[in-house]
Amino acid sequence: MTDISPAVLPAPPYYAVVFTSLRTPGDDGYAETARAMFELVRDQPGYLGVDSARGADGFGITVAYFRDEDSIAQWRANAEHTAARKLGRERWYEAYAIHVARVERAYRFDR
Amino acid sequence: MTDISPAVLPAPPYYAVVFTSLRTPGDDGYAETARAMFELVRDQPGYLGVDSARGADGFGITVAYFRDEDSIAQWRANAEHTAARKLGRERWYEAYAIHVARVERAYRFDR
Repeated sequence: MTDISPAVLPAPPYYAVVFTSLRTPGDDGYAETARAMFELVRDQPGYLGVDSARGADGFGITVAYFRDEDSIAQWRANAEHTAARKLGRERWYEAYAIHVARVERAYRFDR
Repeated sequence: MTDISPAVLPAPPYYAVVFTSLRTPGDDGYAETARAMFELVRDQPGYLGVDSARGADGFGITVAYFRDEDSIAQWRANAEHTAARKLGRERWYEAYAIHVARVERAYRFDR
């Protein structure tokens, strides 16, 4: 991922869901499901964008932006997303943290 | 970085500063300054933790957690941090976005 989201910053307040995770070794279906989730979330009304980075050490951060709490709740209730989260706990993650946060202000710098 | 911060989640509300960035090619002093900033921020009253991940494509996300807006303002005013941000715009970043967000709730999973 080499673009920074959202490309055009929405007017605050909006929401950031920060997912910080440490992967288990091996793929075990992870990459395919991750791609599917990045595709699926685009259909979620209120979705504003996503950014993701993972280092060679298996430590990664994904930040998804949403218009409001209701969009987050709907995405959380999505059946495919719920199934993916279950597999995440069973297989793919040693540990993770989720922070749901209300964006108060945001800035961008583009060279 | 292979630990997830904060190790013990504080009681919300607290703040997450999400720094999403795309590096310019080459190091040019970046790694040394980044290490110095990770050290320095630990002395900032109200600092709660930091997580950072960068992929091979140069795209990275750093999330720093703070107790309140005042801690963030003080860290922003720190002279060494201000000098580092200036070098960041001049040398190290193609683009970046900063989101200052109030954490409403948080969860952790540890295998």
